[in-house]
Amino acid sequence: MAGNSFGQAFVVTSAGESHGPGNVVIIDGCPPGIPLSVEDLQRDLNRRRPGQSRIVTQRREPDEPEILSGVFEGETTGTSIAILVRNRDQRSRDYADIRDKYRPGHADQSYDAKYGRRDYRGGGRASARETVSRVAAGVVAKKLIHAAFGGQVVGYVVAVGDVQASVDPTQVKAEAVEAFGPDEPNPVRCPDHDVARAMIERIEEVRKDRDSIGGMAEVVARSIPAGLGEPVFDKLKADLGKALFSLPAVVGVEYGSGFAAARMRGSQHNDLFVPSEGGPVTSTNRHGGMLGGISTGMPIVLRAAVKPTSSLPREQATVDRRGVATTIATKGRHDPCLLPRFVPMAEAMVAIVLADHWLRWRGQRGPVIPRTP
Amino acid sequence: MAGNSFGQAFVVTSAGESHGPGNVVIIDGCPPGIPLSVEDLQRDLNRRRPGQSRIVTQRREPDEPEILSGVFEGETTGTSIAILVRNRDQRSRDYADIRDKYRPGHADQSYDAKYGRRDYRGGGRASARETVSRVAAGVVAKKLIHAAFGGQVVGYVVAVGDVQASVDPTQVKAEAVEAFGPDEPNPVRCPDHDVARAMIERIEEVRKDRDSIGGMAEVVARSIPAGLGEPVFDKLKADLGKALFSLPAVVGVEYGSGFAAARMRGSQHNDLFVPSEGGPVTSTNRHGGMLGGISTGMPIVLRAAVKPTSSLPREQATVDRRGVATTIATKGRHDPCLLPRFVPMAEAMVAIVLADHWLRWRGQRGPVIPRTP
Amino acid sequence: MAGNSFGQAFVVTSAGESHGPGNVVIIDGCPPGIPLSVEDLQRDLNRRRPGQSRIVTQRREPDEPEILSGVFEGETTGTSIAILVRNRDQRSRDYADIRDKYRPGHADQSYDAKYGRRDYRGGGRASARETVSRVAAGVVAKKLIHAAFGGQVVGYVVAVGDVQASVDPTQVKAEAVEAFGPDEPNPVRCPDHDVARAMIERIEEVRKDRDSIGGMAEVVARSIPAGLGEPVFDKLKADLGKALFSLPAVVGVEYGSGFAAARMRGSQHNDLFVPSEGGPVTSTNRHGGMLGGISTGMPIVLRAAVKPTSSLPREQATVDRRGVATTIATKGRHDPCLLPRFVPMAEAMVAIVLADHWLRWRGQRGPVIPRTP
Amino acid sequence: MAGNSFGQAFVVTSAGESHGPGNVVIIDGCPPGIPLSVEDLQRDLNRRRPGQSRIVTQRREPDEPEILSGVFEGETTGTSIAILVRNRDQRSRDYADIRDKYRPGHADQSYDAKYGRRDYRGGGRASARETVSRVAAGVVAKKLIHAAFGGQVVGYVVAVGDVQASVDPTQVKAEAVEAFGPDEPNPVRCPDHDVARAMIERIEEVRKDRDSIGGMAEVVARSIPAGLGEPVFDKLKADLGKALFSLPAVVGVEYGSGFAAARMRGSQHNDLFVPSEGGPVTSTNRHGGMLGGISTGMPIVLRAAVKPTSSLPREQATVDRRGVATTIATKGRHDPCLLPRFVPMAEAMVAIVLADHWLRWRGQRGPVIPRTP
Repeated sequence: MAGNSFGQAFVVTSAGESHGPGNVVIIDGCPPGIPLSVEDLQRDLNRRRPGQSRIVTQRREPDEPEILSGVFEGETTGTSIAILVRNRDQRSRDYADIRDKYRPGHADQSYDAKYGRRDYRGGGRASARETVSRVAAGVVAKKLIHAAFGGQVVGYVVAVGDVQASVDPTQVKAEAVEAFGPDEPNPVRCPDHDVARAMIERIEEVRKDRDSIGGMAEVVARSIPAGLGEPVFDKLKADLGKALFSLPAVVGVEYGSGFAAARMRGSQHNDLFVPSEGGPVTSTNRHGGMLGGISTGMPIVLRAAVKPTSSLPREQATVDRRGVATTIATKGRHDPCLLPRFVPMAEAMVAIVLADHWLRWRGQRGPVIPRTP
Repeated sequence: MAGNSFGQAFVVTSAGESHGPGNVVIIDGCPPGIPLSVEDLQRDLNRRRPGQSRIVTQRREPDEPEILSGVFEGETTGTSIAILVRNRDQRSRDYADIRDKYRPGHADQSYDAKYGRRDYRGGGRASARETVSRVAAGVVAKKLIHAAFGGQVVGYVVAVGDVQASVDPTQVKAEAVEAFGPDEPNPVRCPDHDVARAMIERIEEVRKDRDSIGGMAEVVARSIPAGLGEPVFDKLKADLGKALFSLPAVVGVEYGSGFAAARMRGSQHNDLFVPSEGGPVTSTNRHGGMLGGISTGMPIVLRAAVKPTSSLPREQATVDRRGVATTIATKGRHDPCLLPRFVPMAEAMVAIVLADHWLRWRGQRGPVIPRTP
Repeated sequence: MAGNSFGQAFVVTSAGESHGPGNVVIIDGCPPGIPLSVEDLQRDLNRRRPGQSRIVTQRREPDEPEILSGVFEGETTGTSIAILVRNRDQRSRDYADIRDKYRPGHADQSYDAKYGRRDYRGGGRASARETVSRVAAGVVAKKLIHAAFGGQVVGYVVAVGDVQASVDPTQVKAEAVEAFGPDEPNPVRCPDHDVARAMIERIEEVRKDRDSIGGMAEVVARSIPAGLGEPVFDKLKADLGKALFSLPAVVGVEYGSGFAAARMRGSQHNDLFVPSEGGPVTSTNRHGGMLGGISTGMPIVLRAAVKPTSSLPREQATVDRRGVATTIATKGRHDPCLLPRFVPMAEAMVAIVLADHWLRWRGQRGPVIPRTP
Repeated sequence: MAGNSFGQAFVVTSAGESHGPGNVVIIDGCPPGIPLSVEDLQRDLNRRRPGQSRIVTQRREPDEPEILSGVFEGETTGTSIAILVRNRDQRSRDYADIRDKYRPGHADQSYDAKYGRRDYRGGGRASARETVSRVAAGVVAKKLIHAAFGGQVVGYVVAVGDVQASVDPTQVKAEAVEAFGPDEPNPVRCPDHDVARAMIERIEEVRKDRDSIGGMAEVVARSIPAGLGEPVFDKLKADLGKALFSLPAVVGVEYGSGFAAARMRGSQHNDLFVPSEGGPVTSTNRHGGMLGGISTGMPIVLRAAVKPTSSLPREQATVDRRGVATTIATKGRHDPCLLPRFVPMAEAMVAIVLADHWLRWRGQRGPVIPRTP
């Protein structure tokens, strides 16, 4: 029961289904005085929006947010902020077939087991449509951490299937993620542009095969003060891990050296501290910006593995609600690869965790003393 | 602030440092009627205990628990359960050197940044000694899920450095994890016995080199009912991910196909539902027992990457609290490889999450039995 | 930070201001299968609605709710329920005067102290308009506890100034609260009808004096199972106390014998247990249905003291934001006595607490029904 | 489930029974750098201690606290603080009789209904013995709010039965509460010394009658900054109300004018703002220091009604666990009037709420700017 809130101090509460009237998010605990407009929200909502390019789902949603509360004269008031995004292009008829059949890889069977019923239209609450609320809340979080300490969160795609990019998280620029050049958007959101073009090809190839493909995204948070994270359970790595795992289709999360560390020796893995003007830094960053679950002031670097879209426009064997064997071919409109639209969702969740921990830190420790290099 | 509690319905709250008087854990929300004894606790505490074999730290702690409350006439009463484990073999003098120097890979610098001070004796609150509380709470959780639905949680080591085991999570037996045979304990807790012996060799080799090594553990939870997990933020995968990431030294978590899914196509990855007597099951388990963040009834399979121990008995470059360059060689007594003792910690956290979600599920879905006069 | 959520298992999260676009509430954790319609909501919203009679504020709000999520085919799905009530009749110009002046008895000064700013239009977030969200959530809670165990919550006015009613909480009927007879509504919601008419006269007298008056409401919850309440902090009396104190204008709460108990001896106060078919009951109910903070199965009886409306259409001395002495006469449209509209708010909060504690009870105690294949 | 934690930022978690090994409390979220010693704790524990005078229970408990964690070199470290108070004088045999009988006014029947079992020794978890944990946590809270903003919490008895004191909460001194003079302790903790002596007489009279008596305590918190409290549910009045109602035997709570406000008109009740150097103050304090549920900077004044002790050393009719009529005379050792020992409990809960809200305020609003007159 009651799993639709996230955070302790910057609390995000979410409601809404894929084909109901809309999605709404309440953000509680945001400090007063943060400028917030519909345009701010729209920018990231557009990055998550279906129909934004030919390599994503063709569902057409304008995703226009309405701020219902918590903002007055252009700034947050400190009271709870509610944002509503109505659903427009629902085409419920596309989904009539899945009412009684369990789509492989989807949450149809598990929702039925959990609740004894489900809103089957477009996946209902299990649809990734709910992430529109996360992205809206993430905009507020990003503005807060930027205002508070210059914090910056950038996500990007590092792998589509076996097409792998090479990106330096300390240098990557948001512009390179979003565009190949002034007038040429980068639909796959990989800042390694040659590889990006190969990724796009791979996605189109997969779509023509009526198939889908997985991938990997990386998120870097820079200019994050040392000292964020609450041992022993709400370590920063634990809350960031939860945040990313709570996103649809995420099946693995690592930070810093991640799974590669399992093969390493301590003498290879330890980052050595070296003196620096703003306080100690490390010469390398295999620890991904967190030690003991607390930020060190070095860039925080996380990666998430995203499984291939489960909805496939081809016939697959399955069972129906009564447990009888049948087949299903998902119609609807789906992403052949989730990664391009995953980037703003992952950024949002990372920003929300950082905003939350920043407020928690400030509650316990008081006035802001940025320690970041 | 306030990160020492975990769970919503089965709530674990922890306190204690490496070299203070002891560690205490309060477990709140456990149903009444669960048999619980000091012996039950001791069994898993012994698996986590330092000094249990020659490949782990030689600190000598009996780790004898005292039940302070919540148990009456051998059974839980439904009120809060407190368990105290006193520290005995502290040898504080070993740690005097680290008072002013930051150990590479440790939380010394980040704790100082966070709190402006730290109990430096043996790592204080940042020491893995706090996991004694988690293991004690995990025993209660294991007993609860076993009593409630026959649930079983088994962890084991699947990799030490590049020495990798091959284990079938649906078949693995706790006995094979703990022992090579009736009188021969398995100190490395890998149920693939030939590989286990190679792992032990690798650990001894590393120790002789005054180095340490990373590895990977897997945890399987079997006989778990479909329907556990609370979308959209407290998905079962999200809470399990947080639980494992909250453990010391964990730098990556995956479930089911995990990071391998990033390279797969949907047609390869989807598990197909097939009819079965107890309800639909899948013929394969690449989804690791969770879809939409809710358990499907299939075994839940997770893996955690554990970094090599940061404490090394060799000289490393670092800085001191004032930011001046220096060197440090950690004395103390440390595990050359954390994995053998990590297994009961990981099991405990998985069991705690399952107990919590089972109670949450029952609150929302459990049958109505009016009790009114 | 973050005080806009209430409850642990049945969680109500609220947002909205008096003169913004509207108020929204998210209800998380409600079990699936509870029938819920706009008409269900409208019934109680009408009881809280401004303009419902001549003794309440004349602001005209239809208070028409829109269910945004969590309901499918007329029943709750178990996912989060969002309800939106738009504001219509805002007349912002009425409030321009209070932008810089602190109204006596209002939250203007304390909001400014807290947030450094405030949405001054109609009191913003501090307006009792936010209780529209509570009443909507209360409808869901009432339906849940009625479906689960036949629980029933009835509130009514027992005092307006010194006009005091005599009501037997075990016998009071909702119909008598709402109406004098088939076609004659009871605008003051006191079921002691002779006294009710005297109360109405008193309110009109006060209004003519351009003054306001306080009063007292009582809420009784009947057919509540024994065993609800979570010692030692979330005792049922503690959560009910908080629930009522969280309502605007409540300055005192008591249950059972309440403040009168301070003058009694134990031999006078103790209720004696007597045998009964459904389990032990007490022959008297001075304990107001709770012992040790846990429900006993006897009717739960609470009273709240409500202060006189602070907004007065007469001149009062005060200061402005800069701290300079001035005077103010609140224009706007206000209730001369809050009690008639307070009744549905108090019922809602009591029902929400009971729903929450029922789910919490069931989580810990509900029978085990294994669902594993 | 899970009702043994209190607070969001300054979190108190409690365990322990009347006749088990002891009581333990974990305080999570306390800022680092607060000096804390066993002597600090002992001072308030002595005020709560049984056997402290002839008008309280004669159970003999030294109530010596042991700090298990969270304090290093005499100051808090910012990590979780655990404090253990062992039980010594348990005399379990006194209570054998209540194993199967329900004591009137006690929680025996409601605990049985809730958990299906109970630790009947001395009331188990339902005993007021658990408040030893609250008082210990309250000491930490008092030290925190004093260090942070000079905040001060003083409680005292204002009524024993119909013996009523007259106390000015703005002037009352802790010394007058504790002692009649340098060498003469004030066992009843009423600072109106003539009335205090009458109260003592009344309590002795009642004890000789083998009866008990109720009363009323008042708590004032002074030098509290304006701006504490989190609308709309975690208003300061709501959390203070919950805090006091969570204490054993409290059956009513009011603040400021309280129940008297129900009889007043707005023109009588409103406190007018007047200019002052430290920001606006009110010339009267009928609002008890809170408006809109947020502190105004004026003294916070609360009153709690405490029922007469339920345990009576005389025969009363009741039923046993099987529902059969019987009689009971509580032996054991009990307070004829709870009020003298209630004072430190009430102070502790008020201080805990203020500490919690102070940290919450600081998280959202940042650096400390005291606004108190």
